[in-house]
Amino acid sequence: MSRAFNASSVAGAILMMALPAFAQEVLPSWNDTAAKNRIVAFVKATTTTGGQGYVAPDDRIAVFDNDGTLWSEQPFYVQLGFILDRVKALAPQYPEWKTKEPFKSILDGEPKGIARSGEKGIVELVMATHAGQTTDQFSTIVSEWFATAKHPKTGRPYTEMGYLPMRELLDYLRSNGFATYIVSGGGVEFMRPVTEKLYGIPPQQVVGSTIATEYAIIGDVPVLKRLPKIDFIDDGPGKPAGINKFIGRKPIFVAGNSDGDYEMLRWGTAAKGPSLAIIVHHTDGEREYAYDRQSSIGKLDKALDEAERRNWLVVDMKSDWKRIFAFEQ
Amino acid sequence: MSRAFNASSVAGAILMMALPAFAQEVLPSWNDTAAKNRIVAFVKATTTTGGQGYVAPDDRIAVFDNDGTLWSEQPFYVQLGFILDRVKALAPQYPEWKTKEPFKSILDGEPKGIARSGEKGIVELVMATHAGQTTDQFSTIVSEWFATAKHPKTGRPYTEMGYLPMRELLDYLRSNGFATYIVSGGGVEFMRPVTEKLYGIPPQQVVGSTIATEYAIIGDVPVLKRLPKIDFIDDGPGKPAGINKFIGRKPIFVAGNSDGDYEMLRWGTAAKGPSLAIIVHHTDGEREYAYDRQSSIGKLDKALDEAERRNWLVVDMKSDWKRIFAFEQ
Repeated sequence: MSRAFNASSVAGAILMMALPAFAQEVLPSWNDTAAKNRIVAFVKATTTTGGQGYVAPDDRIAVFDNDGTLWSEQPFYVQLGFILDRVKALAPQYPEWKTKEPFKSILDGEPKGIARSGEKGIVELVMATHAGQTTDQFSTIVSEWFATAKHPKTGRPYTEMGYLPMRELLDYLRSNGFATYIVSGGGVEFMRPVTEKLYGIPPQQVVGSTIATEYAIIGDVPVLKRLPKIDFIDDGPGKPAGINKFIGRKPIFVAGNSDGDYEMLRWGTAAKGPSLAIIVHHTDGEREYAYDRQSSIGKLDKALDEAERRNWLVVDMKSDWKRIFAFEQ
Repeated sequence: MSRAFNASSVAGAILMMALPAFAQEVLPSWNDTAAKNRIVAFVKATTTTGGQGYVAPDDRIAVFDNDGTLWSEQPFYVQLGFILDRVKALAPQYPEWKTKEPFKSILDGEPKGIARSGEKGIVELVMATHAGQTTDQFSTIVSEWFATAKHPKTGRPYTEMGYLPMRELLDYLRSNGFATYIVSGGGVEFMRPVTEKLYGIPPQQVVGSTIATEYAIIGDVPVLKRLPKIDFIDDGPGKPAGINKFIGRKPIFVAGNSDGDYEMLRWGTAAKGPSLAIIVHHTDGEREYAYDRQSSIGKLDKALDEAERRNWLVVDMKSDWKRIFAFEQ
């Protein structure tokens, strides 16, 4: 269908441009509380040309933790779900896993037993499931897994476990000239196949942990092989380092949910100019999960203690969010 | 001055949109040779909706080596010029350098003596001049150096030693929806302070070699300290690894000038879809420098041998470029 060019459509277009607030509600899944108001006020201040808090578009860098900030990290990290499934899928090739920890616990259906192997066991699991193939092969494995794997509590695909209010926040920031990045402890090549669909964030704006790769020629085709060797851990103090390495600019908007984001929250709010840091506080045991100081996953303790003093905005999921997931009625 | 809205300005605007070729010459510093024609044909094919060679904007990733591809690397790498000047500036703090190689050679005004210390000596020089300060401090040191340092042959600031035809090529690609990246063996934090001005490339689109950093609190302010430890060498087989790590997409346009770009040229032209790889061949000893197979800097041998077979476009600086530097008359 084509539409005729006429005076009333021009007038309509001008009205839409002049009055965006009337055209579309901002952050519709957020309740009209102080949290939403502060975010909107920050965006207005940083984008108002000539205003005191104005920030040039090039410097509007926003960074978001992923697990527990953009999508659910309970009852276990999504990437751990991938590891569990991969161990089961690969087990026929490794008969020794039947008696060898931490693989044995997983194959016996007691994944909590992994904890007994400590950090060494976790690294072993990551290497067994994340290395040994080319980057293209790994990307395919990840995409195929996301196409079928389901969240253990909701039964929904993990790609539906993103928080709707945070997706709205990402869109809102982008529509105001912010560049949005993920800065996560998760593996960068585990996230990249799904971040565009989930969050509208393209691969080159995903910062995460990396394993070493090696260039090789197979046949006459160049490939990158994923080696069983950690290259970089993008967590805790690694997050500012990752931001500096990959982005090379300081963010002015930072979102996290745990003490693993503490250094990034500090990093993003240390400059003299305007900045806003938010902490997603998991307070809703009914619609999602309620946890903070005592949780082994996404422990939020030190950052919560310092939030008020540092003027970080604590978002209360229960009272600040109308909806948490898009699939909710 | 305000301009009245009228029919003729609308007609003019429509004409400009419909006939961009008439409005502005493409790649004006390139001669009208096969090289220019092939580049223009590639860009037209990849951007023509519905055409056989069409590439969606998200996949229009272009990567450029820096030294010898975007700016001059003779008689020595720009970053070596920085090292030499920093050693002299720091020498009063390190009296032992007067008798210790490779520092002694530099302080004695015989920088060629560095070669005797081999790779170990080079690493020592990099660490002595690139580590020990915060990332902010280093950025300031680099910016201040670029503000005064001059190229030894032309006497021009290094920031004027970029190749005008390549800057035009970057602009041309960007105006056609390509995202342009630097992928260089140079230090990422050495390049970032000047790439926007030189090439229109922002910090987050610069991939390079990195040294390790460490998060620390000084006073109550978080900083990143640059450690005397190489993190990643973005050269040779490291370039595809760097592209994968930082960008996470495969390029379809690759530009290099030496065997250090060989693996990146292979990586960018291995996919089944459309791609174009160009090699800047230094053939103009009068306007710039003439070198290839025998050069210790920017050696071009293997990549030149394979260029024809792999359909890589060899750009002859002498015959394909009308002007090399913007400062030429």
